[in-house]
Amino acid sequence: MVAEIITIGDEILIGQIVDTNSAWLGRTLGDAGIRIGRIVSVADRAQEIEQAIRNALTRAELVLTTGGLGPTKDDITKRTLADMFSMKLVRNEEAFRWVKEMIEARGLVFNELNQSQALLPDECTMLPNRNGTAPGMWFDLDGKVLISLPGVPFEMKELIKNEVLPRLQAHFALPRNLHKTAITFGLAESMLAETIAPWEAALPPHLHLAYLPSALGIRLRLSVYETDDPHAAAEIDEQFARLEKLIPAYIVGYGETSLEEATGALLIEHQESVATAESCTGGNIAHRFTAHAGASAYFRGGVVSYANEVKTAVLGVDSQALAREGAVSRIVAEQMAEGVRRATGATYGLSTTGVAGPDGGSPEKPVGTVWMALATPNGVYAFKRRFSSLRSENIQRASSFTLNLLRLYLKGLLKPE
Amino acid sequence: MVAEIITIGDEILIGQIVDTNSAWLGRTLGDAGIRIGRIVSVADRAQEIEQAIRNALTRAELVLTTGGLGPTKDDITKRTLADMFSMKLVRNEEAFRWVKEMIEARGLVFNELNQSQALLPDECTMLPNRNGTAPGMWFDLDGKVLISLPGVPFEMKELIKNEVLPRLQAHFALPRNLHKTAITFGLAESMLAETIAPWEAALPPHLHLAYLPSALGIRLRLSVYETDDPHAAAEIDEQFARLEKLIPAYIVGYGETSLEEATGALLIEHQESVATAESCTGGNIAHRFTAHAGASAYFRGGVVSYANEVKTAVLGVDSQALAREGAVSRIVAEQMAEGVRRATGATYGLSTTGVAGPDGGSPEKPVGTVWMALATPNGVYAFKRRFSSLRSENIQRASSFTLNLLRLYLKGLLKPE
Repeated sequence: MVAEIITIGDEILIGQIVDTNSAWLGRTLGDAGIRIGRIVSVADRAQEIEQAIRNALTRAELVLTTGGLGPTKDDITKRTLADMFSMKLVRNEEAFRWVKEMIEARGLVFNELNQSQALLPDECTMLPNRNGTAPGMWFDLDGKVLISLPGVPFEMKELIKNEVLPRLQAHFALPRNLHKTAITFGLAESMLAETIAPWEAALPPHLHLAYLPSALGIRLRLSVYETDDPHAAAEIDEQFARLEKLIPAYIVGYGETSLEEATGALLIEHQESVATAESCTGGNIAHRFTAHAGASAYFRGGVVSYANEVKTAVLGVDSQALAREGAVSRIVAEQMAEGVRRATGATYGLSTTGVAGPDGGSPEKPVGTVWMALATPNGVYAFKRRFSSLRSENIQRASSFTLNLLRLYLKGLLKPE
Repeated sequence: MVAEIITIGDEILIGQIVDTNSAWLGRTLGDAGIRIGRIVSVADRAQEIEQAIRNALTRAELVLTTGGLGPTKDDITKRTLADMFSMKLVRNEEAFRWVKEMIEARGLVFNELNQSQALLPDECTMLPNRNGTAPGMWFDLDGKVLISLPGVPFEMKELIKNEVLPRLQAHFALPRNLHKTAITFGLAESMLAETIAPWEAALPPHLHLAYLPSALGIRLRLSVYETDDPHAAAEIDEQFARLEKLIPAYIVGYGETSLEEATGALLIEHQESVATAESCTGGNIAHRFTAHAGASAYFRGGVVSYANEVKTAVLGVDSQALAREGAVSRIVAEQMAEGVRRATGATYGLSTTGVAGPDGGSPEKPVGTVWMALATPNGVYAFKRRFSSLRSENIQRASSFTLNLLRLYLKGLLKPE
């Protein structure tokens, strides 16, 4: 089944905001078996909105609009929809109660502007918005469906999950598709494909595998389409269990798990803690750990040792070794990891020292060269990699590689180099 | 003048990537006097690409496509354009030389797949791509213009700046518009508007002011449209100089400057340095400083003191004060800033300690409460704020507020509280 998306709002066309809603809708509706055929962004102008909707309805069974539902005069989606389908804007009593509760819960005055949010085209179905004052609207149009949603991402997403998808599944008798996604880290796509070829070849024909690139690594999605089999989810789980046996070191987790969350969960399980000593990653690893709620259970702290004096004074790196080998060296990485472990009392210490670029490279240590180490109660492990020529990419990739060292160690899978 | 954008590629429709190109094009072309009328995303299918281009050309004088120019068989934009305009794909000798140089400079083999990048429709103008192997293409179509660019953002942007905009200005005799944008921080839009009302009222009528929201704060843009006046740029500068006198503390810089870059530039000017002691911001301030090339000139390092023992052992915070006042307190923020200044030998120390949330709040110190301090050679300054209920927002806002403390101090504008 094919749907089209229409995003409404001058702010997208003038580039004031990036449209992140459409990508989320593409993934979420795609998982439900709805393919997005086209995405169109138009201005807050009645004629353009109407034309875009009429065109989309000639091609697709389902049209979703986002945006233009605020209470101010710029926002004309609701009025335009009422006009184009010859409906009246009338007060929807259920919407009125929702909006009133929402406004009063925020301690605001329920004034005329807010009350206008409860005016809806009289023949649409109101979709309650639990995160804002603009209700969603569902229009049945001779077998096709038009859905209008607010543009604020967390309002739109909640409406899709709780109101739109269940109704779409019922209305279009959508097939039940099952998906589960494994996050991999550490293997390029071609290597991954080669390594898991025997597993892939042995998959039963009704299990479909997709390789999905992501910022972290390749994600592997297994899908069963149009199924009523109550065992389908268990069958997917079994296949992923087999995959884990084949590539135990490369699967970080399932769904939306990040490296730092997977590592944090293992630390909680082991009742252990970590601290970081960062040079070239400049605090990025600490920031990634602490961006997640509950990090204080396993993250004790860190040192960003940009200046060499901080490496020696705070982390206890040997100044003679530093002078002899340079800051970007195995011994400095090892002593940084051990130093922060000692200084913070953490079970483990992680360190990075490298040439992030764009300057500071040399023939022996070109931009992108990074030494990374993990200090444990039973010894220290150091690794050298050359990443990229881009500073931001070097910071991200060195952070991920270092986080992964601890994840592998905690799973008993770290191989010293 | 109105343009339309067509982004080509399944990866946008299935939500694998977010389309950031369109917002950048909206801003960049908007500054050049070209309004984006519509943005359409279509799949890598010849019929859909052709239909979208034909429709766009009925409405707009200029149509820009991005994507679908890679060398693999998924990428069909070039072949589709040749077919729809009855042109032949022929080897473009200039493109051939460019692509060959590009491939060989990367140490790769110039194979048949790469050579196909130099095949172009015979009646288009080749736009050289300095950052990749897919040339841009310019088609003159009975007074209208169609431009096809690669989808990789840094290739597309370079082509727009160096090849497309100069040609568009010549071809359409575009009016010369001048813009300059000031970045403000620390005043909400309504307060800012009230404060600068006298300045705004005194602007000459040919200078246009726009308020543009951004992640950091409100940006103020002054524009002169359709001007040949050689003094127009100086006139904008003079008006911004007057604005700076009115709100000296609130203007961070111009263009794309960030708070950390503005602060770093002041530190370089003063030949001074900074170090950070972060609790609730978890390394984010250090990460923001060090994300910029050249940070080692002024950033000495930092400590992320998540655990209380790190606050006392590494930063020398008084354990009795910590027990008495709690970690989120004036005295702990002050001692953290002084401690990291002392430990690293930096001129200044910055600190944060607060309740990032979602847990850990109390009636006296609800989620979002943060103490922040700046230690200087002449004393320490501490500030308390309550930001938000969202963890990520608290981390970002506390980081920005703290960076701004040092910026204000270095400009002689910090007011103790």
